[in-house]
Amino acid sequence: MKLASLKSGRDGRLVVVSHDLTRYCAADNIAPTLQAALDDWENCAPRLEALYTDVEHQAVPCERFHEREAASPLPRAYQWADGSAYINHVELVRKARGAEVPESFYSDPLMYQGGSDAFLAPREPIPLADENWGCDFEGEICVITDDVPQGVSSADAAGHIKLVMICNDVSLRKLIPGELAKGFGFLQSKPPTAFSPVAVTPDELGEAWADARLHLPLHIDYNGEPFGRTHAGEDATFSLADLVAHAAKTRPLGAGTIIGSGTVSNKDEDGSPGRPVADGGRGYSCIAEIRMIETIRDGEAKTRFMRKGDTVKIEVPGEDGKSVFGSIEQEVA
Amino acid sequence: MKLASLKSGRDGRLVVVSHDLTRYCAADNIAPTLQAALDDWENCAPRLEALYTDVEHQAVPCERFHEREAASPLPRAYQWADGSAYINHVELVRKARGAEVPESFYSDPLMYQGGSDAFLAPREPIPLADENWGCDFEGEICVITDDVPQGVSSADAAGHIKLVMICNDVSLRKLIPGELAKGFGFLQSKPPTAFSPVAVTPDELGEAWADARLHLPLHIDYNGEPFGRTHAGEDATFSLADLVAHAAKTRPLGAGTIIGSGTVSNKDEDGSPGRPVADGGRGYSCIAEIRMIETIRDGEAKTRFMRKGDTVKIEVPGEDGKSVFGSIEQEVA
Repeated sequence: MKLASLKSGRDGRLVVVSHDLTRYCAADNIAPTLQAALDDWENCAPRLEALYTDVEHQAVPCERFHEREAASPLPRAYQWADGSAYINHVELVRKARGAEVPESFYSDPLMYQGGSDAFLAPREPIPLADENWGCDFEGEICVITDDVPQGVSSADAAGHIKLVMICNDVSLRKLIPGELAKGFGFLQSKPPTAFSPVAVTPDELGEAWADARLHLPLHIDYNGEPFGRTHAGEDATFSLADLVAHAAKTRPLGAGTIIGSGTVSNKDEDGSPGRPVADGGRGYSCIAEIRMIETIRDGEAKTRFMRKGDTVKIEVPGEDGKSVFGSIEQEVA
Repeated sequence: MKLASLKSGRDGRLVVVSHDLTRYCAADNIAPTLQAALDDWENCAPRLEALYTDVEHQAVPCERFHEREAASPLPRAYQWADGSAYINHVELVRKARGAEVPESFYSDPLMYQGGSDAFLAPREPIPLADENWGCDFEGEICVITDDVPQGVSSADAAGHIKLVMICNDVSLRKLIPGELAKGFGFLQSKPPTAFSPVAVTPDELGEAWADARLHLPLHIDYNGEPFGRTHAGEDATFSLADLVAHAAKTRPLGAGTIIGSGTVSNKDEDGSPGRPVADGGRGYSCIAEIRMIETIRDGEAKTRFMRKGDTVKIEVPGEDGKSVFGSIEQEVA
């Protein structure tokens, strides 16, 4: 099934959305908010699934679904932790500054605890107080869990993944080196994230969800031009289940925890870091990567970070070419 | 006024507690949970204050308040970010490993984003799956804010501090070096935090709340013996308002955000790092500090980290000697 939260108050109003994202039916008689549904998922999920079947069969009255009316599926959450499943991204960052990738990064994922008190809606402008902060987008796959016990195995973690989304993990690149040097992780360098209009259950994804990885392309357009045409199912060193298990190593995770894949990033067919879309490559899911390629290739980065008025669109086309999660479309304001 | 959340469901049940912590009156007719009250603080706070006046005047029927029945005031929260106001703690950590404290640490606070999806209750055991993780307590002062705008000044941030608490920021010391080296901050090394039974408004603290600092002692007993007798009003390089402003530099903070002071830590009267309570000093608010002192003094740490059965009690006595926030009392299980 597909779920969304229409903008309403701090936590939105839960609705069930049709597979083709054209219709919705209010679900707030089952649970007022998605968080409330996740808090009692075992009870709510079957009822939401039944409603979804009715929506698909047009057996209940539906309203027209407009992605622009959706908040992030969880407009705020109790936890958002973001990993680095695509080591190509990490390799690129390090290569650009002449550093090696420690061997441990291939078995022990990088993950940071993100701010989750207020997310941007999928069509909400990115507020940027200072263009010198180096505003960047990051296209990622993420999942929402139910209650996950401490010490869960990766195999068992897969069963705790209840919903899948995509996100734009907005980053302030120029603030990152200072914060990384302090060792305490990202705080000021990670302003609010935006998630896709719709969250989708793994079963709804069919064969595109396998090994707790999303086997679909991630399309990113920057200022209206194709910028990223990566494939989320390839080059993912860690699955989303691996990342959930990493987060739960020393503590349980509360229902509604969001875990992210990190920036989706593919190697080129010849094993080299990917080429830009304009050069026939798959491109990138963030500006930082093309800047790294430029730095490695030309000695300096020429693509600048986002300024006011720049736009980014992030979307996953299904095998039928139709948008699976709806699109994140944001302008820097 | 003083507020608490009696254990009930995931978010507790809001009650108003008498100044002396002996009585409570249910406040869930005003707001079902503390988070709900914070979401609408302007409207709820005056009504809670009125109820508090009635509780103090015994003008409403009250029940006996038992600290053991309290959850953390916010049993889960949308944000928990913890700073390092007491640079003596940072100096000690660095000194023990022969590193300097960068000059910037005195103007740019260290702060990490903590997990907030599930806190421990103030009397709840600390679950520890592996004693080799190096379990430690950290006694801290923390505050809860309402909605804080991005870019707030430190002066304005003070007005957004609505409640004050203390906490035990449980740390897994042996996991910290590996995570710090990765630069992405604490994730596995910071299992759930426990907060005091009661949260208190700044005005209720009278002169003990000045310059957005708590001017009261922090008492910590470890296995029944005095371990820390620090003073939270001294040696705080940053105020809680400074830390709120730091967190809000690039993003707004949602209502119910918890910001922590970091481990309370005092220098000795002669300017040296503090002595143990047993040696006539003020002692420490975490085991790591006494281990650093031992390392500096004797070449190696002899005090071990917490094992199953070890207990810690954290409390702030008011000027009348009575507990201000109630006590955190936890056993490692």
